[in-house]
Amino acid sequence: MGTRLEKLAIIGVGLIGGSFGLSCRENRIAKVVWGYGRREPKLQKAVELGLIDRYSLDLREVVEDADVVALALPVESIILTGEKIFPYLGKNAVVTDVGSTKEKIVKRMEEILAPKFRFVGAHPIAGTEKSGPEAAFAGLFKDRYCILTPTEGTDAGALDLVRELWEQTGARVAIMDPEEHDRLLALISHLPHMAAYALVNCLSQREGEFPGLFSYTAGGFKDFSRIASSSPLMWKEICLHNGKAIVQAIESFRANLLEIAEAIERGNGEKIEKIFQNSKGIRDSL
Amino acid sequence: MGTRLEKLAIIGVGLIGGSFGLSCRENRIAKVVWGYGRREPKLQKAVELGLIDRYSLDLREVVEDADVVALALPVESIILTGEKIFPYLGKNAVVTDVGSTKEKIVKRMEEILAPKFRFVGAHPIAGTEKSGPEAAFAGLFKDRYCILTPTEGTDAGALDLVRELWEQTGARVAIMDPEEHDRLLALISHLPHMAAYALVNCLSQREGEFPGLFSYTAGGFKDFSRIASSSPLMWKEICLHNGKAIVQAIESFRANLLEIAEAIERGNGEKIEKIFQNSKGIRDSL
Repeated sequence: MGTRLEKLAIIGVGLIGGSFGLSCRENRIAKVVWGYGRREPKLQKAVELGLIDRYSLDLREVVEDADVVALALPVESIILTGEKIFPYLGKNAVVTDVGSTKEKIVKRMEEILAPKFRFVGAHPIAGTEKSGPEAAFAGLFKDRYCILTPTEGTDAGALDLVRELWEQTGARVAIMDPEEHDRLLALISHLPHMAAYALVNCLSQREGEFPGLFSYTAGGFKDFSRIASSSPLMWKEICLHNGKAIVQAIESFRANLLEIAEAIERGNGEKIEKIFQNSKGIRDSL
Repeated sequence: MGTRLEKLAIIGVGLIGGSFGLSCRENRIAKVVWGYGRREPKLQKAVELGLIDRYSLDLREVVEDADVVALALPVESIILTGEKIFPYLGKNAVVTDVGSTKEKIVKRMEEILAPKFRFVGAHPIAGTEKSGPEAAFAGLFKDRYCILTPTEGTDAGALDLVRELWEQTGARVAIMDPEEHDRLLALISHLPHMAAYALVNCLSQREGEFPGLFSYTAGGFKDFSRIASSSPLMWKEICLHNGKAIVQAIESFRANLLEIAEAIERGNGEKIEKIFQNSKGIRDSL
């Protein structure tokens, strides 16, 4: 990385923010990495784990004089916190985020920051069903895509800096339009989460009929449903940010399920096998 | 195990049959474990890997004089092969299977075998998306359920013997009605497979719009879709055997997906979060 930062501020030191901080510290990206959060034990833990150098419960103290402020929060909190930090930012500060949705965040951040400041939307496509600083690790982003969503008004220098910050984590940086990002993510990430939540609930509705139903489940179900352990609050916010694309993705998934159900109902073995062959071919090639 | 068998015949030495054979050999359940299959290289491999002692391409040679014949084949082949072995069975032979569906298999096997022979339907709920003798391992059934589906006509001694055979693999034996088994499996196993196949196909339909779409997928999608690598032939047969229960399970899953989509469409954050909380609570407790 060409430029070493004086001060990097990470707002939210959970799985993503903490892993990002750890990578920046290991690669000596900034003289000091500050963390902000609302719960002191979590921030203390983040310092202990080496994810950040120091912390404050005072948002202003963390943000002031920062070269880069990274908002590593659930998507709605990114907007709310972006609004709050506005008065504290230095005039060359670059603001970025890690939100799983981009259109609403980029639009709002550009409204409040663009005339004076520099915002670059970012989304590292990485994560586990776990959360919190304890779950953070430096290799989280390695070989994973990080999608940056600059717009016409994005400052070129800010974009370069944010790109470098993500490249040093080992991530592969891709550039996309915010709206395109959201439609893509609705398919590859948001839909699988909706499916996992729906599957677990669907099964739980039959526990009366089959006591201990879940104890019979095997690896297929467990793998499938792992992401149903993800944070309900975080995923609620993603749904509210990216509702239209997620609803469309669910509709398309429901149509695919109906096609299978209809083939089974008609006893059309040839069609059933063809559908499964197609899936297997794609999955095996990944 | 109280009784040591003279001859155990395993028809089909893939993942399930091979792992069962390996466990029986390690625990010295039978003086000799024979394997039958249609492809000689696969059978040779099974001998090399210690899954069986010897093999033949002649079904009669493998089945004749066997104390126990285990049909470890896709569900439709279990019925077809059951019909073929009928004339070769000794009068005390116990026949069992490992099929993922039970109602059709048990009904047909009792029709052809019950007056003279002893059949016990069995289904070890274990497996991976892999298949073939190379995928077999002795620990596959450890702490997994194996459901036995005796009926009123099932010989008590045959049931005891089959129970012992599964207990020595480390499996937990449960007893269920064949029809009850099929409705349960439609939910906990067949539905997740349908969902995985449908999800992969749903995404592949959008590759034109998003070139390289699958390269952006993260762990959630990969876990979710792993079972879409399962054998299309095997799963086609399961669908044709257990169509009614699978179609019902798909309908119930589609209703759960619709409920989420409608809550998102209405922007009902409280409802969305409640649905996700419920799923997470169940998944975390597993």
